Amino acid sequence: MFKIAIAGASGYTGLELIRLLNQHPNTELTVLTSETFQGQNIAEVFPSLNGVVDLKLQPLDTRIADDCAVLFLALPHTAAMDKLPIFLQSECKIIDLSADYRLQDPEAYPEWYEVTHTHPELLKKAVYGLPELHRKSIETSQFVANPGCYPTSVILALAPLLKTGWVDLGSIISDSKSGVSGAGRKPSLGSHYCEVNEGISPYGLGKHRHTPEMEQELSALAGESVRLTFSPHLVPMTRGMLSTVYINLKQSLSDDELVKHYREFYQDESFVRVLNPGKFASSQHVLSSNFCDIGLKVDARNQRLIITSALDNLIKGASGQAIQNMNIMLGLDEKTGLMAPAIFP
Amino acid sequence: MFKIAIAGASGYTGLELIRLLNQHPNTELTVLTSETFQGQNIAEVFPSLNGVVDLKLQPLDTRIADDCAVLFLALPHTAAMDKLPIFLQSECKIIDLSADYRLQDPEAYPEWYEVTHTHPELLKKAVYGLPELHRKSIETSQFVANPGCYPTSVILALAPLLKTGWVDLGSIISDSKSGVSGAGRKPSLGSHYCEVNEGISPYGLGKHRHTPEMEQELSALAGESVRLTFSPHLVPMTRGMLSTVYINLKQSLSDDELVKHYREFYQDESFVRVLNPGKFASSQHVLSSNFCDIGLKVDARNQRLIITSALDNLIKGASGQAIQNMNIMLGLDEKTGLMAPAIFP
Amino acid sequence: MFKIAIAGASGYTGLELIRLLNQHPNTELTVLTSETFQGQNIAEVFPSLNGVVDLKLQPLDTRIADDCAVLFLALPHTAAMDKLPIFLQSECKIIDLSADYRLQDPEAYPEWYEVTHTHPELLKKAVYGLPELHRKSIETSQFVANPGCYPTSVILALAPLLKTGWVDLGSIISDSKSGVSGAGRKPSLGSHYCEVNEGISPYGLGKHRHTPEMEQELSALAGESVRLTFSPHLVPMTRGMLSTVYINLKQSLSDDELVKHYREFYQDESFVRVLNPGKFASSQHVLSSNFCDIGLKVDARNQRLIITSALDNLIKGASGQAIQNMNIMLGLDEKTGLMAPAIFP
Amino acid sequence: MFKIAIAGASGYTGLELIRLLNQHPNTELTVLTSETFQGQNIAEVFPSLNGVVDLKLQPLDTRIADDCAVLFLALPHTAAMDKLPIFLQSECKIIDLSADYRLQDPEAYPEWYEVTHTHPELLKKAVYGLPELHRKSIETSQFVANPGCYPTSVILALAPLLKTGWVDLGSIISDSKSGVSGAGRKPSLGSHYCEVNEGISPYGLGKHRHTPEMEQELSALAGESVRLTFSPHLVPMTRGMLSTVYINLKQSLSDDELVKHYREFYQDESFVRVLNPGKFASSQHVLSSNFCDIGLKVDARNQRLIITSALDNLIKGASGQAIQNMNIMLGLDEKTGLMAPAIFP
Repeated sequence: MFKIAIAGASGYTGLELIRLLNQHPNTELTVLTSETFQGQNIAEVFPSLNGVVDLKLQPLDTRIADDCAVLFLALPHTAAMDKLPIFLQSECKIIDLSADYRLQDPEAYPEWYEVTHTHPELLKKAVYGLPELHRKSIETSQFVANPGCYPTSVILALAPLLKTGWVDLGSIISDSKSGVSGAGRKPSLGSHYCEVNEGISPYGLGKHRHTPEMEQELSALAGESVRLTFSPHLVPMTRGMLSTVYINLKQSLSDDELVKHYREFYQDESFVRVLNPGKFASSQHVLSSNFCDIGLKVDARNQRLIITSALDNLIKGASGQAIQNMNIMLGLDEKTGLMAPAIFP
Repeated sequence: MFKIAIAGASGYTGLELIRLLNQHPNTELTVLTSETFQGQNIAEVFPSLNGVVDLKLQPLDTRIADDCAVLFLALPHTAAMDKLPIFLQSECKIIDLSADYRLQDPEAYPEWYEVTHTHPELLKKAVYGLPELHRKSIETSQFVANPGCYPTSVILALAPLLKTGWVDLGSIISDSKSGVSGAGRKPSLGSHYCEVNEGISPYGLGKHRHTPEMEQELSALAGESVRLTFSPHLVPMTRGMLSTVYINLKQSLSDDELVKHYREFYQDESFVRVLNPGKFASSQHVLSSNFCDIGLKVDARNQRLIITSALDNLIKGASGQAIQNMNIMLGLDEKTGLMAPAIFP
Repeated sequence: MFKIAIAGASGYTGLELIRLLNQHPNTELTVLTSETFQGQNIAEVFPSLNGVVDLKLQPLDTRIADDCAVLFLALPHTAAMDKLPIFLQSECKIIDLSADYRLQDPEAYPEWYEVTHTHPELLKKAVYGLPELHRKSIETSQFVANPGCYPTSVILALAPLLKTGWVDLGSIISDSKSGVSGAGRKPSLGSHYCEVNEGISPYGLGKHRHTPEMEQELSALAGESVRLTFSPHLVPMTRGMLSTVYINLKQSLSDDELVKHYREFYQDESFVRVLNPGKFASSQHVLSSNFCDIGLKVDARNQRLIITSALDNLIKGASGQAIQNMNIMLGLDEKTGLMAPAIFP
Repeated sequence: MFKIAIAGASGYTGLELIRLLNQHPNTELTVLTSETFQGQNIAEVFPSLNGVVDLKLQPLDTRIADDCAVLFLALPHTAAMDKLPIFLQSECKIIDLSADYRLQDPEAYPEWYEVTHTHPELLKKAVYGLPELHRKSIETSQFVANPGCYPTSVILALAPLLKTGWVDLGSIISDSKSGVSGAGRKPSLGSHYCEVNEGISPYGLGKHRHTPEMEQELSALAGESVRLTFSPHLVPMTRGMLSTVYINLKQSLSDDELVKHYREFYQDESFVRVLNPGKFASSQHVLSSNFCDIGLKVDARNQRLIITSALDNLIKGASGQAIQNMNIMLGLDEKTGLMAPAIFP
């Protein structure tokens, strides 16, 4: 049994790690941290864990990594940025669910996150933890920067296309939709029930922080600089994410040809499901699972491809993917503890 | 007091007409029809009308128009297509909320609606009832084809741009989101609570019936053939619609310049609200009102304009707009009975 | 036109007052206060008011009452308790939507609200503003304490029974359900979208602050001390309230007899709708209206009466009722500005 | 591996059986039936099962039981009533999720279900499958009638009290609230998104079919005839159930004493969680799990006990409990495949 620590256990991604690891046959939760709720039992903070998990929350101690096989950092951005050098001195594997080490270019932090990175020398050390693209590097890495939810949905939607020459790389638009849990558990007017319910709202148009993360990975895949227009929207639901991605085709292609190509690209992947031609991805069908569903539809009248990509923002978009990375880093079967099908309805 | 008949009073747009006309100072509801619920009082079908409206539902009789000043057709597509010639023999004003007479090209009906139009000669007689574009024609028309909800949101979003030369007319994409009431009251798996709730789903990609309606009006505005990619999505909410429209800019433009231009274009309009630069339209802020909110945001990195356009699909997207048309046709102040602000939250 | 001031305009009941008064033919909004948002235009705080209301928010000044015909206090409990003596020196009518002056017994405040009342001498001066019970007193009063939402639903459900001798006054239970807007706009974990959505939760069982308010009015009606068990629940919806009230019958009674009795009791009331025998009240059917629907159902097997009572917590449960009181106090038709039917769906 | 057949696999309880059994280590799904969708793959009917379950739906054949260890009947009421004699001739274990064999008194069927039972001789053969009450009989039974969702929540809430002498057995009221999935997948106006959303509605007051099932079990526990008032309500959420149960106390009791008593009563139960004194059960905290949470609160002012009882209507209220019964009947650990904690949020 591998000993696991979770820093930031009282947030939604922390809770989701706990829930998934509770069902994982090879791990044992040993340390949970929370500054806000320290001293309380995790089941007091989340009554869903009553009778299931019995651990007291403690403050974050930098020696936390010393006794664990894996440390998950489920903290707000920048909260643990400074502590990475200490954690990395241990032999513990580190999986950081924040954005602190996702971007390789230190200049991107002041531009998109309004913060100067305090440890730019470590950016190269962190592997961007999208297993479908970087599995080999993840296997041998001590330190994984777990991708954002939006980037996971958009990068998986586009990855098979970028080297085909079939598409206009200057035409990418992702109109993305997310449930409210992506904003975290901290109360704010923006997550107040009455402000979200019965409405659909765009936010952060043209400047959302996940943009450089997508562009970094898409550019690496394409072998040239790729930019996109990224438009997130808040949907009145707790979980779920759908990206509707638009890209102009340079040549006529059918739904069938595209589905075939995508299925070949993802043939060894357990968590990417390429839907039959003519089917669209829908967030309900992946809810509570680690799957990412991808649907392909050519708008032939306009020679444009519409890619629909759905996932659960807290699982394949966060904690499930983090555990997928953990499985790879520990040499376990990548699917362990992650094959529960979606709950529907 | 103008006497009003509503054919199809037991559907959602029919009910919304009743509710709004009940508050209108110059109208009197005299006839409500329903095949399904004939013989019942409308307040039995919709208990919200208890003590407010007291009228019995009757079957649709073609002489219904004879005694009324205005007849609203709130029926399913094709249900009244054949009856228009008879209705038009009366002096009654006809406002058809179905798509039966929205498209001027008879060929579009078999292509998009899988039906041959039985009265193509009347298509030219019907005025497309978007007051912001066709007010003069509506004033003198006996017969208005009331626009669809998606087309209203998309056409109003784009109208000010089409003759400017600022934009690439081949690049238009509308990623639109709607509440469930747009699908009507008839039960189906697609409107089952558990199938819709907690999910976001695309549907009809590349082939939704509202596409030719948008292209007809956008082309007329541009003076050249305009096509777009239109992607509707179902959002877990009862009412509300948001279209996020993308169009490439041919030149650099600021949010300020665009807002100024839109405000000039819509300066005489009571129901189009152009938001301040940097603000995005959100469906909650127009819920239960006849307003269409439009927000403008330039994605300068990609020289692309993002237009957000929000309305209540049952009001400015259907019954409110129908009453706006009625006011114009009857020579009343266009705003009469329609100035109630949105209900929030 | 009567000049109106609203203290606490940036909360939900404040906004609802603004919205309803905007449609009222005899009033003019002149002063809106907010400590949090002072200096901003109300339409910046609530974009739904864009183009509809154009007033700047100002801090609460005790001379606010001097220039107005009516001052609505839509403030948190105790926030204006101390200011009432000053307000009452003006000739302005005061309608307080908080609980500060609802209870006649000063001892009830420390017991239920954990606060010592600072002006017990004014408690007798305030009229409990439930027009169906206290219309005569409201007509001549300068100062109305507007009822709570739960008490309105429960008292109207029970009022016709209390002097009949038909029921066991010791057996009353109200199992009540409310939408989230009743908790106000201030963000908290309890109103976070993800914490409320997809769940139903009891709260405050056995100790909710609305209990003494109900017991005060029920006792006055019965002419003897009446107690009840009151159990509020939070429902995942923005607005709406349903109280399911249980009371044991001392004799056999039919649904028909009870409906007849209730209709006689409420025969002169515009806003109480007694449903046909066998029909249950449902919150959707009163949403956005000032109606309270009451349904009656005898559980003959157990000789127990089940009363269902539904209202919109922000309208008949707060701001609509406050305007109903205003109309009475100003000598206007009580229904003015309040007859809009419910919005459905 | 035990071979499993599910009759009625295209409904919500059928799907939930599939999902849970897919995670069960000792079972193998071999037969799924559906009349409506026969010939289709289950993953076409439920895209959530894509890549997870690959079985074709077939019509219900009476020999279905012959090759299986367990047959689950997840069919509408009466659909399989006639087939039980045939199924029981096999050696297959039968677990019927319908109400067809839950009531021991044949006369109850015409009274509550408006149907004459065609095989009253088998009613005694069926064991009422609430393991917390009837584990011993379930162990040795071939045929289990799986309890309804409401009865499970209410019976577990009251069971510890009925022989104590502490309570007035004539005073029981259960005000119960359910998500929409309890009504099944068949489209109807009552499950239409727009008719349910943003509202709370009572239904079936005084005559819901689950009443005799509760009274049968409560009476058996009490050793005397027990009746209750049962009031179900529809809540705008997909899953979840909360029963708020009221019962008069004959003596003063504290929350602590009651919690202690309940914990002793349920000390060997894995799926009943008795909450700490002062805590209320909430449906979110059991969502997607097989737990039933029970909270106890004395309303001392009225000497009345309020019991809150929450479960997931599709799991402990249906398919999870059916698998719990299966585990018992097959001699497996009762908890196998059922210990996944609730998903939150």
